[in-house]
Amino acid sequence: MKIGITGTGSYIPPIVTKNDDFLDHHFLSEDGSSFGHDNTVIIEKFKSITGIAQRTYAKPEHNTSDLGFFASEKAIKDAKIDKEELDYIIFAHNFGDVSYGKIQGDTLPSLATRVKHRLGIKNPRCVAYDVLFGCPGWIEGVIQAQAYIKSGMAKKCLVIGAETLSRVVDQHDRDSMIYSDGAGATIIEATTHNGEILAHASATYANEEAYYLFFDKTYHQEGCSDTRYIKMHGRKIYEFAVTHVPQALADCLDKSGVGIDEVKKVIIHQANEKMDEAIVKRFYRIYGKEMPKDVMPMIIQDTGNNSVATVPTLYDMICKGALPEHRLSKGDVVIFASVGAGMNINAIVYRY
Amino acid sequence: MKIGITGTGSYIPPIVTKNDDFLDHHFLSEDGSSFGHDNTVIIEKFKSITGIAQRTYAKPEHNTSDLGFFASEKAIKDAKIDKEELDYIIFAHNFGDVSYGKIQGDTLPSLATRVKHRLGIKNPRCVAYDVLFGCPGWIEGVIQAQAYIKSGMAKKCLVIGAETLSRVVDQHDRDSMIYSDGAGATIIEATTHNGEILAHASATYANEEAYYLFFDKTYHQEGCSDTRYIKMHGRKIYEFAVTHVPQALADCLDKSGVGIDEVKKVIIHQANEKMDEAIVKRFYRIYGKEMPKDVMPMIIQDTGNNSVATVPTLYDMICKGALPEHRLSKGDVVIFASVGAGMNINAIVYRY
Repeated sequence: MKIGITGTGSYIPPIVTKNDDFLDHHFLSEDGSSFGHDNTVIIEKFKSITGIAQRTYAKPEHNTSDLGFFASEKAIKDAKIDKEELDYIIFAHNFGDVSYGKIQGDTLPSLATRVKHRLGIKNPRCVAYDVLFGCPGWIEGVIQAQAYIKSGMAKKCLVIGAETLSRVVDQHDRDSMIYSDGAGATIIEATTHNGEILAHASATYANEEAYYLFFDKTYHQEGCSDTRYIKMHGRKIYEFAVTHVPQALADCLDKSGVGIDEVKKVIIHQANEKMDEAIVKRFYRIYGKEMPKDVMPMIIQDTGNNSVATVPTLYDMICKGALPEHRLSKGDVVIFASVGAGMNINAIVYRY
Repeated sequence: MKIGITGTGSYIPPIVTKNDDFLDHHFLSEDGSSFGHDNTVIIEKFKSITGIAQRTYAKPEHNTSDLGFFASEKAIKDAKIDKEELDYIIFAHNFGDVSYGKIQGDTLPSLATRVKHRLGIKNPRCVAYDVLFGCPGWIEGVIQAQAYIKSGMAKKCLVIGAETLSRVVDQHDRDSMIYSDGAGATIIEATTHNGEILAHASATYANEEAYYLFFDKTYHQEGCSDTRYIKMHGRKIYEFAVTHVPQALADCLDKSGVGIDEVKKVIIHQANEKMDEAIVKRFYRIYGKEMPKDVMPMIIQDTGNNSVATVPTLYDMICKGALPEHRLSKGDVVIFASVGAGMNINAIVYRY
């Protein structure tokens, strides 16, 4: 049975925040001390490592589930299916609906239910649930959809990745410049003509790695000690990712039976440009190859890192021709790959 | 392929709160007005509808993931498996780790990762994720585990349901007396000798029902308007449940090929005694039968409603002989059933 992606949609929110918009921020180090240099230096270094020049934030009146809904509407239309035929709505996120200016995430009801509600789907047999798996949540949702289809439990699934990380950042943390908001959605179906998942791989490293990404208080000593924000040990994550992700991709590719030279694109989680490059370079090195030019499409410079949304958004843009230098033709092989909180790693080898 | 439950564990936390402990609470109606009668009257009525005489709360130093870990340790031991053989850890909850006295749920990393971390599992191929599906989350996790096993993606899965609802209740809401804390866990395996899932059913009603359970501010007009709590439209939920759950159970039973007379126990989500009774009575009425005595084991009188934890906890207690009047023998058929936020309904027909 071939299981493929028959429709895609994404929503890039409209509030563009440039790097210069952080010039007035009072950045602090972990211990609350100031940096010995100007924000221009901090921002310059940030840009050179992450590649991020701007990021997009949701409108104050929109929450994560709204973004997911906008992307889902497009994916359903793109797949040309009747929304009532959906067997599953799988919504990957990590913080729930965090309203603008608030600190509590709202997951009652689930965000998948909220999307189903807004889509107006009446069929009760369309099962709607949320999955929390760090940034790799959307890929994991696709793997779950594949399991339901393979085991005869479903025919058509909507898999969404959406997040509003701008609502959980500490303004005093330089890493706040990384995070952004967005949504991507896809329709997964048993199909004979529209692409095929060839192999997948998933892993959770939960020993010393479990808390590399974590929820903690602001670096500002006089800030509210009750409020928690997304925090990370960036250096450790970088080392973890370049150590484990390349081999995971290679294992997945080998399982698929596809040769390295057949890989057209590596559609990798837009985490950090330098880290992503290091991962893909090492992946090619496993096969004794140089990383080909144009194999790794990037949108992080314009969108920032919006967690679960980066991979489906990037794929949607490629499918819709929004990245002219990264067109796909029928039969091309792409690898979806992600790494993030958990620490989780996953990948899918996919024939377009 | 037979897929069964090969181990169970539960954790009922030690802080017992009696109904009389609510005598001094200042209960208010939705509009903030006081009730025209004494708390003794409110508590008496509450007891007669819900059946709850006491509920159990987690120790202040424990969070939802700790409770899930305690139950998981027992389930792994009970199944006599090597924890490193687990392919999945699926953790059903709805609010994350809400520390005592705080209002933010912490889901970074996922609660499944936290359990894996505390279990000390080294195998990275054991994939740990969280599922949000309202109170029916644990049953849904079992259905997901079944899909992974059926499709060849897994052999052994740990499925956890844990919650600390005491951390998300509005003290001024009478419904706060319903909710409690707890955890249940099970090992799901392909097995030839240890029970068998015969059929399952899942549904999400997300039209007018989507927000029957919701997150909202306190009924106390002078309370902090920024803090949100678990809230419900109790009457609507009751009507929804008695209308839809009996038929869902019947559909699932019919799919299993098992006759109604073969059903030994209906292990239903401990939501509210009167509602649960009404559901099971109507379920039997579909088959023109009276509800048999002792078919519906209840622990709600002692534990309260701890969401995703009620069904696996109740099943664990039955398996371990803690409810002498509800013993199971090999070959007995039980139905697991739940209804809750989403609004979600699900059921599993299971041969012990």
